Amino acid sequence: MTTERDLLITEVALRDGSHAIAHQYTVEQVAKVAKALGEAGVPYIEVSHGDGLGGSSLQYGLSHTNEMELIEAAVSVSGDSKIAVLVLPGIGTVHELKEAAKLGVKMARIGTHVTEADVAAQHLSKAKELGLETVGFLMMSHMAPVDKLVEQAKLMESYGADAVYMFDSAGALLPHQVKERVRALRQNLQVDVGFHGHNNLSLAMANTLAAIEEGAKRIDGSIRCLGAGAGNTQTEVLIAVLEHMGIRTGIDLYKIMDVAEEVIAPILQVPQEITRDNLVLGYAGVYSSFLLHAQRAAKRFNIDSRDVLIELGKRKVVGGQEDMIVDVAAELAKQRN
Amino acid sequence: MTTERDLLITEVALRDGSHAIAHQYTVEQVAKVAKALGEAGVPYIEVSHGDGLGGSSLQYGLSHTNEMELIEAAVSVSGDSKIAVLVLPGIGTVHELKEAAKLGVKMARIGTHVTEADVAAQHLSKAKELGLETVGFLMMSHMAPVDKLVEQAKLMESYGADAVYMFDSAGALLPHQVKERVRALRQNLQVDVGFHGHNNLSLAMANTLAAIEEGAKRIDGSIRCLGAGAGNTQTEVLIAVLEHMGIRTGIDLYKIMDVAEEVIAPILQVPQEITRDNLVLGYAGVYSSFLLHAQRAAKRFNIDSRDVLIELGKRKVVGGQEDMIVDVAAELAKQRN
Repeated sequence: MTTERDLLITEVALRDGSHAIAHQYTVEQVAKVAKALGEAGVPYIEVSHGDGLGGSSLQYGLSHTNEMELIEAAVSVSGDSKIAVLVLPGIGTVHELKEAAKLGVKMARIGTHVTEADVAAQHLSKAKELGLETVGFLMMSHMAPVDKLVEQAKLMESYGADAVYMFDSAGALLPHQVKERVRALRQNLQVDVGFHGHNNLSLAMANTLAAIEEGAKRIDGSIRCLGAGAGNTQTEVLIAVLEHMGIRTGIDLYKIMDVAEEVIAPILQVPQEITRDNLVLGYAGVYSSFLLHAQRAAKRFNIDSRDVLIELGKRKVVGGQEDMIVDVAAELAKQRN
Repeated sequence: MTTERDLLITEVALRDGSHAIAHQYTVEQVAKVAKALGEAGVPYIEVSHGDGLGGSSLQYGLSHTNEMELIEAAVSVSGDSKIAVLVLPGIGTVHELKEAAKLGVKMARIGTHVTEADVAAQHLSKAKELGLETVGFLMMSHMAPVDKLVEQAKLMESYGADAVYMFDSAGALLPHQVKERVRALRQNLQVDVGFHGHNNLSLAMANTLAAIEEGAKRIDGSIRCLGAGAGNTQTEVLIAVLEHMGIRTGIDLYKIMDVAEEVIAPILQVPQEITRDNLVLGYAGVYSSFLLHAQRAAKRFNIDSRDVLIELGKRKVVGGQEDMIVDVAAELAKQRN
């Protein structure tokens, strides 16, 4: 018997949620969560370091447990749920992707900055060769105008992605902006469109519903909001809302509520709130990695770090350009004098 | 110089938020919060027991400090911000309203169940006599069809309410339902329409934006989500979102962020999350006071308390009808056998 699903939900608490617990997942925790998610009928479960395969490092945070062990544990207990992995080209390699495929992973999600889809070409084609389902992600999608987003999504499609997601990585988009983007993607792509939201502006659910209204067929959620920044669209809440809307996900509402309360909540040491820092990041629309740099630079020039972050957002500064943070702070300080 | 405001925000952390800290506010805390809110430019600050004036009781929870002392403290430090009080007829009396007015309160917010506006008549007219601004609230507004809501709102208006709010007390409404209701209210009332949301379905912000889109001019928020259930629309986040939309509230974004992080967060012992219980209440659309009763009844009949709550929601059981909870549980148990 096939489960009827109007939408395909991917649960990301075991990947994006890894950020929220400083990548300290244990084999026991992952096995418990993946088993419970499988029993709840979640179609895809993403398991990787928060920054994808190979993310465990001094730069991105060391994992407590080798992610291949976590993946193996998840595959062994997840039943009909398929295990997915995230790969960010430049961090994760094709070698790691192969290893994950050997362990029984069924889906590769390849993510790039919204303007850099071309770096996903090799990983996507390799994933197809390995017989995996493939998804292309465009991250920080608020940073590109709609036509650029569409152009990059078409590249992802041309490399073999079975679906293309827009990621609102900073939780910076408003619902009407999500609608406009998803509509344009739907008009220009043959493959499914997906959406992954963050809650920095308390709009993850609103944006997810906006995406669904425009025809997005793949949606990411994280149980109990377990994700980077202010967390993601809260899966168990989303399932409740979709039940009210008559949209079928194949996920059992009571079971997913129970996973949240009984399995995930005890793992989470610090509940996901919209703190000042997360709010500023979403409002400015910048990478979370900029926060500490901006705070340090602001202190040095005796200005408000929020002004620095907002200016960085306006200039669309991207990862790797952290050097510019001090320059921006110096400029702002000069303007004030 | 008058502050330009497209919307009037009322901060409810010192009233609805009282639920979140078991009504344990101290004079020092209230003074600190009210002063900071005044400096941030918040036009209205509500201060009362969570269930309004006179709410301190064994039934509704005893306050740490007499609310009149809290109100006096707030009035003395809030600068240009006006202090509002909540009165639920049946709990709060006209006598208490007078006392609050003497202390310098400027606004009376009179709330009733969505179908019982008539019990607000006396309190609203008395508040007018006392020279107060008046607001009528229709609580649990998801429980009435749109025409009933409009009829009751018109009653509130006829009693002298300067504005009528719809309260999504259980956090049960979806954005399209809010739109439909606010639109109908706007079409049928001369006075301002307001919206007060709860976050049980992670839709407080989405619903607030939906209400604003339809012309609601008064909006409630609570800093750091401090409110009953899963909390309210998070004020500082709302201000950030409205800034992006070019909607002027007269509230300083950085200052309200700072109140949240530096003044409110340290008061809050347990962060506001969407727990299983809050989610079930929002999904079922029932009073939070039903939760424990339903859990007890469900245990007795060996069924799932969620089934009981959802059935109570379907039957639109209201406060005071708690006796029905056991009956519903018994019926459900019988159906299963």
